[in-house]
Amino acid sequence: MAIAKKDLLSLSDLSVDEIQEIFAVAREMKTVIAGEDKKHPVLRGRSVINLFYENSTRTRSSFEIAGKYLGADVVNISASSSSVTKGESLKDTAKTIDRLAPDVIIMRHGASGAHEVLAQNVKARVINAGDGAHQHPTQALLDMFTITEKKGSLEGLKIAIVGDILHSRVARSDVWGFRALGADVTLCAPPTLMPSHAADLGVTVTYDMNEAVKDADVIVMLRIQLERQKAGMFPSVREYAAFYCLTEERLALAKPDCLVMHPGPINRGIEISGEIADGVQSVIDEQVENGLAVRMALLSMMGGYQNDVN
Amino acid sequence: MAIAKKDLLSLSDLSVDEIQEIFAVAREMKTVIAGEDKKHPVLRGRSVINLFYENSTRTRSSFEIAGKYLGADVVNISASSSSVTKGESLKDTAKTIDRLAPDVIIMRHGASGAHEVLAQNVKARVINAGDGAHQHPTQALLDMFTITEKKGSLEGLKIAIVGDILHSRVARSDVWGFRALGADVTLCAPPTLMPSHAADLGVTVTYDMNEAVKDADVIVMLRIQLERQKAGMFPSVREYAAFYCLTEERLALAKPDCLVMHPGPINRGIEISGEIADGVQSVIDEQVENGLAVRMALLSMMGGYQNDVN
Amino acid sequence: MAIAKKDLLSLSDLSVDEIQEIFAVAREMKTVIAGEDKKHPVLRGRSVINLFYENSTRTRSSFEIAGKYLGADVVNISASSSSVTKGESLKDTAKTIDRLAPDVIIMRHGASGAHEVLAQNVKARVINAGDGAHQHPTQALLDMFTITEKKGSLEGLKIAIVGDILHSRVARSDVWGFRALGADVTLCAPPTLMPSHAADLGVTVTYDMNEAVKDADVIVMLRIQLERQKAGMFPSVREYAAFYCLTEERLALAKPDCLVMHPGPINRGIEISGEIADGVQSVIDEQVENGLAVRMALLSMMGGYQNDVN
Repeated sequence: MAIAKKDLLSLSDLSVDEIQEIFAVAREMKTVIAGEDKKHPVLRGRSVINLFYENSTRTRSSFEIAGKYLGADVVNISASSSSVTKGESLKDTAKTIDRLAPDVIIMRHGASGAHEVLAQNVKARVINAGDGAHQHPTQALLDMFTITEKKGSLEGLKIAIVGDILHSRVARSDVWGFRALGADVTLCAPPTLMPSHAADLGVTVTYDMNEAVKDADVIVMLRIQLERQKAGMFPSVREYAAFYCLTEERLALAKPDCLVMHPGPINRGIEISGEIADGVQSVIDEQVENGLAVRMALLSMMGGYQNDVN
Repeated sequence: MAIAKKDLLSLSDLSVDEIQEIFAVAREMKTVIAGEDKKHPVLRGRSVINLFYENSTRTRSSFEIAGKYLGADVVNISASSSSVTKGESLKDTAKTIDRLAPDVIIMRHGASGAHEVLAQNVKARVINAGDGAHQHPTQALLDMFTITEKKGSLEGLKIAIVGDILHSRVARSDVWGFRALGADVTLCAPPTLMPSHAADLGVTVTYDMNEAVKDADVIVMLRIQLERQKAGMFPSVREYAAFYCLTEERLALAKPDCLVMHPGPINRGIEISGEIADGVQSVIDEQVENGLAVRMALLSMMGGYQNDVN
Repeated sequence: MAIAKKDLLSLSDLSVDEIQEIFAVAREMKTVIAGEDKKHPVLRGRSVINLFYENSTRTRSSFEIAGKYLGADVVNISASSSSVTKGESLKDTAKTIDRLAPDVIIMRHGASGAHEVLAQNVKARVINAGDGAHQHPTQALLDMFTITEKKGSLEGLKIAIVGDILHSRVARSDVWGFRALGADVTLCAPPTLMPSHAADLGVTVTYDMNEAVKDADVIVMLRIQLERQKAGMFPSVREYAAFYCLTEERLALAKPDCLVMHPGPINRGIEISGEIADGVQSVIDEQVENGLAVRMALLSMMGGYQNDVN
C-alpha cells in the first residue's frame, strides 16, 4: 500500500488505514533490525537528504540509520554548514537541493510553515522531522506504534500527556494521533505551559497531575526545557518537579499496567524519577527502537514515489 | 578516455578534448540521475575524501552525492573538526589523509596554492573544489556544460559575466573555459570590483552593465558578498543594485533567447531580480543538476587512476 | 579467532594471542587497502556508530573508512550535535544509541571511566578511541603492529617514549603493549611532565633524552600540546625543544636502524625535526596506514559479536 499524499508534514496527512499499514511494515522492520543482516536494500539506488536546521541526535541518527539499513544513499546537511548562513532563502535552498535528485527530504526546522515552503518547491517527498512547536509526526507514529504493540490498540485507552504542552510539537502530534485511533486524551500542565485553546482539541484539560494520571493506561511525560525557566514560565525547577514530576506515588494512581513514555532526552528527577524511567512500566528505550522501525517503514513506503509518479 | 593529468587544480589542466569527453559522460550521468535506480557503481571499492576548509553546502553535497551514486565510499572531513585546529601543516595533513588510501581527494581551501601542496604530497588524485579567489574548475565545467546543452556550443557566443569579478574564482575559471571553447567574454563590474589586469585576459572590460549585456547570448551573474560592503568596495547595496542588478529592462537588451546563469546562492533583488531568477530564461536550477552530472562524470573518469597507474 | 571480551576499553582487555591474531588479520587488510577493490564487505548488514566527544580527524576518519571498506553502515555522532548539549546523561545517551541496533560503538571521550559507563549500558561492543589521559588501545595496537612489521617482533627491543608522558594516553597504552610483547621501555620527559608513579610501571625512567635514546631500537616521540605551556608545565617551547626535540645528533645515539614513530599530528621543530620526520628512519606515515589496517582487523573480528552471542 502506497501513501497517497506526496508529503508527510502533519500526522493528519495520513489516513487511519495508512497509519495501520505503517505499523504493519514497522513490525517487519523490527525483525530486520533484530536480525543478523540489517541490510534490507529496498531503497537501493534511491537517496535521502537529512536537512536539519536544529540539532537532534536522536531523530537525525534514527532517519540516517533507517535510510542506510534500507540501502539508500543518505546525505546530511546541517544548518550551520548550509547556505542559510549565506542568507539564502529557504525556497532557493529547496530548489537547489531538489536538483541533487533526492527521493526523500527529511527536514527539521524551527519555524512552523517552513515545511510547506520546502514541499511546494521540490519534487522529492518531504517528511517533517519536527517544526518549532507545531508538529513532529514521526514521533507521534512511534508513540502510537509503541502503545499498539503493548496494548493491542488505542481504542478506549486513557492517555495522559503531562508537561510543557504549550511548546511541545510532540504533544500536538500525539493528541491528533491518539484521538484518531480512539483514545481519550488528558492534557496536564501548569497554567503557563498550557495552550489557551487546549479545550478545543477534544481533550480533557487539567492542571492537577493526580487527576491526570488517575486510572491512566498510558502516561506520556514531556521534556521540560530548562531555558523556559528563564522566561518565567515556571518559578523554579524544584517547584515544577514538586507538582509535575512522575513519582512512584503518582504512578500508583494509574492502572497497574500503565505504560510510561517519554520522547527523550529525559531530565531525571525533574519530569520523571530515575527509578520509573528505568522501571518495568517504562517503554522509553523501546520507543527509540520503534522510532527506527517506524522510520524504516515510512521511508520504504515513501522512498519510491518520485519515479513511480513522474 | 582517461584524463591525462593526475590532478584537476585549474581548468587549464584539461585539454579541450577532455572537456568535451567530460560533457559526453555527463550527458549519460544525467540519464542515470533521472532514472529509477541512481546507483551506477563504477567506483565500487574506491574511496573519495571531501576535505573542506570552508563551508559549502552546494559543492560539498554535490560531490558527496556524486561519489555515492557511483558507489564509492565517501568521507567528509571539515576544517573545524580536522587537525588544522591543532596547528598541523597542510603538508602533514595531506600525507596523513593519503595513507587512508583514498582514490580522489576533493578540497576546498581559502588559500591559492594550497591545492598544489596537497597534490604534491598525495598519491590520490586531487580535484580543486574552490581555492580562495583563484579557481573553481568544476563550477566552470558545469557552466560550460549548461551552455553547451542549451546552445549546442560556445563557439562565437557573446557571454557577459557581471558582478564582483575581483573576488570571484567562478569568474576566473569561467573566463578561461568560455574562451577555450570559442566564446567572446565581456566582464562587467564596478571599478573597485574589477581586477586591474582584466584587460590582459583576452576579454572586453566595461563598467556599464547595459553595454555588457547588449546582444548577449548568455549572462552569468555573480554573487555579491555583502561583507565586501563593509570593506568599502561599494557604497551601498541599494546603489550596487541600481547599477548592476539584472532587471527586466537590462535583460531586454540581450538576445531574446539569452540564458541567465548564477552560481548560487542568489541574493534576490540585489544582483538579480526574483522574477528573472525564476523566469523562463533562467537556468540556475539546471546548473545545480548539471553540476552533479559533471562531477559524476569527472569522478568516474578520475576515480580509477591510482590503481591503474601505480 | 574471536576476541573473547565484549569490549576493548583498555589494551589489557586483549590477550597476547588475540593481539597476534589482530596483527595477522591486519596484514591481510593491508593487501585489501593496497588493492584495486578496497571493498571487503565482511560487515555488510552490520552497523558502526562513531561517537566522538572530542575532535579527532585521524582516529575518527580511520574508523569511519575502516567500517566503510568492510561494508558496514557507519554513522557519525559528534558531541556538539548530540544530546549532551541538552544535558542528557551518558547512561541515557548509551541506552538510546544502543536501541538503534549498532553492532559496534566507537567512542572518544575526555573522561576516564566514561567508556565503562557506555559498555555497561549497551549490547553493542564498545571500542575505546581515546579517553582523557588514560587509554588509547588502537593507537598502541598500530604502534605495536608497525614495530612488528619492521623488526619481526618486539622481544628484547629497547623502546624509548619521549615527551609529555603525564598527559599521554598513547604512552599509557604503549607501555602496556610494548612490555606485554617483551620490549624494554624507557620513558623520558621533563620532571613536570612525568607521572609520579612512572617507576612502578616496570620501565626505566629518565629526564635525560640522550640516555633515553642511546642504543634504542625504536623512538616514539609524543606530541607536545602547546596549551600545556600556559599551565606552566614547561618554561618555553624553545627550552623544551632544546632538551627534548629529536634532532639528528640525538638520533645518532640510537641504533643505526632505529625506527622513529609519532602518533601525529607533529609539531615540526618542537618535538621532532622536520628532516627526521620526513627521513628514512621515520615510519610516521606508515603508522597511519597501519592504523587503518588494524582498525579494519578489529572491526572485522568484533563486528559480528552481537548476533553471534545473543
